[in-house]
Amino acid sequence: MKEVTLGIDIGGTNTKLGLVDREGNCLVSSSIETYADKPVEVFMTLLFKAIDQLKAQVKEPFEIKAVGIGAPNGNYYTGTIENAANLHGWGDYVPLAELVKDKLNLPVAVTNDANAAALGEMKFGVAKGMKNFMVITLGTGLGSGIIVNGDLLYGHDGFAGEFGHINVVHNGRKCGCGSKGCLETYVSATGLKRNMLEMIAEYNGGSQLDQTPFEHITSKMIFDAAESGDEIAQKAFQMTGEYLGKSLADAVAIFSPEAIVLFGGMAAAGDWILKPTQEAMDANTIRMFKGKTKLLFSNLKGDNTAILGSSALAWQELDKMVSAS
Amino acid sequence: MKEVTLGIDIGGTNTKLGLVDREGNCLVSSSIETYADKPVEVFMTLLFKAIDQLKAQVKEPFEIKAVGIGAPNGNYYTGTIENAANLHGWGDYVPLAELVKDKLNLPVAVTNDANAAALGEMKFGVAKGMKNFMVITLGTGLGSGIIVNGDLLYGHDGFAGEFGHINVVHNGRKCGCGSKGCLETYVSATGLKRNMLEMIAEYNGGSQLDQTPFEHITSKMIFDAAESGDEIAQKAFQMTGEYLGKSLADAVAIFSPEAIVLFGGMAAAGDWILKPTQEAMDANTIRMFKGKTKLLFSNLKGDNTAILGSSALAWQELDKMVSAS
Repeated sequence: MKEVTLGIDIGGTNTKLGLVDREGNCLVSSSIETYADKPVEVFMTLLFKAIDQLKAQVKEPFEIKAVGIGAPNGNYYTGTIENAANLHGWGDYVPLAELVKDKLNLPVAVTNDANAAALGEMKFGVAKGMKNFMVITLGTGLGSGIIVNGDLLYGHDGFAGEFGHINVVHNGRKCGCGSKGCLETYVSATGLKRNMLEMIAEYNGGSQLDQTPFEHITSKMIFDAAESGDEIAQKAFQMTGEYLGKSLADAVAIFSPEAIVLFGGMAAAGDWILKPTQEAMDANTIRMFKGKTKLLFSNLKGDNTAILGSSALAWQELDKMVSAS
Repeated sequence: MKEVTLGIDIGGTNTKLGLVDREGNCLVSSSIETYADKPVEVFMTLLFKAIDQLKAQVKEPFEIKAVGIGAPNGNYYTGTIENAANLHGWGDYVPLAELVKDKLNLPVAVTNDANAAALGEMKFGVAKGMKNFMVITLGTGLGSGIIVNGDLLYGHDGFAGEFGHINVVHNGRKCGCGSKGCLETYVSATGLKRNMLEMIAEYNGGSQLDQTPFEHITSKMIFDAAESGDEIAQKAFQMTGEYLGKSLADAVAIFSPEAIVLFGGMAAAGDWILKPTQEAMDANTIRMFKGKTKLLFSNLKGDNTAILGSSALAWQELDKMVSAS
């Protein structure tokens, strides 16, 4: 009998789910719409239907041992989603673990997507065997999942790890969190786009994106421009990497991690983001930590990385239950 | 038979030691010179003599169960002191746990003084019962001991928690660590003194300390001046608290701790340091964490606080041995 966990990754637009074995093989997977603007019951009905369909696709005898869910503002301690801005139709408080447990009668654990990504890297990815490392997720925003002594840093209330909201510029850019100058306003897909505009402004144009309105610019367009020799786009990456690298040097002083893993869409920019980040990190790391922390890209490939993270949460939960019993 | 641990706090000038029971009562204590400029053997001979004298003073039957040592650059993983600038006579690498264990034949654990302080607060102090909190030690420098999931954050190499060396001013003040703009150059006894000089410079005098050379100014003099209405001294405290509070707001976003505990000499400045720190922390904490983290002073009083911290390390080590067996 094949033992698997069910990994569910809830995003603002789509939700991915899959059945994953202990070695990180995703046996089957699928995707459904999240319907973030409708009541959560709409989503739950779709989810349970999708789970039944998934189970029907597996060709060998199997048993689902537990469920792991990564969700915006997912709280491990309470199993809830609280005040998730991009799931506004669901209300301020969704007892997600309870809803899933009531239906499936399995152990259910919930956390946010960056934390799930960190568990995925530890169990199946580039951080296998590490007990102290960080994952930085570079998407629309900047998230972090921080592993300390082999377990996630959840903090007192379950919401620790908001590294995207440390202050990097006093009275700096307006952030969605209500503050100003947060790291993610400079380092993220959105941050990169804002850096691009600032560079166009600073150099008074000179980029192939001069004709493109702010709303239409994407990370991919800035990447393509940089690749084709657009110096303004290259400077936008440079600026992004400098802010990230300086902040990571602070993270090294605080956590002394074995590695920092860059994860998510922007990591696809390769050396355009890695090189300035590594340089700024090296230049700003204090002497006693210099050269001790590796800067890595995630090596989890394909569409199922988020499912693997959520599944890793479920496997970890099972391991905790065994060691507690 | 009374069970006790031996707590040893090694400082650059003096070393304190004492026998402490499980409730945090220090039965006996004493102090010896550290002789940081002589070979470590000089210190070890004095230390073992002082331990024998301590034991002779105890009036009831007792048994020492373990030894905890707080020392500059003390490494929990290796039991060593590495590259401690203020113990220069001892060499770059001192196998401290081994030296003590060979002589006393007891379990020995080593960590740095800020980590020991955090354990002391968790076991005997204001953080009793907390599983996620930070201690900030404000002495000549700024240290931190960070508790995550009930255990110390040691990081990959045992040296994590250098919160005093996060960057707060780009290309800022020269720091003893070799970098520039580290938090402790603005927030510590030395930082306060530098802030005082900067304020005297900014206001072109007007303080009762105008006549006092930099080398002679102490935190106590700045405190006395502030108390007596010296506005420049008050501004120096304001500046110190602003830097600290802003950095603590970042720490809240990263760790979501139940409390942040201020510990050490400068905490004696009371509201002069607490008020601006609390204000800046509140103003800069992002919305989702606002009002969740308490800012507290250590409630461990008297000369034995450092001994209590080192003793707490020994008690924790014993508890780990029990739960592992």
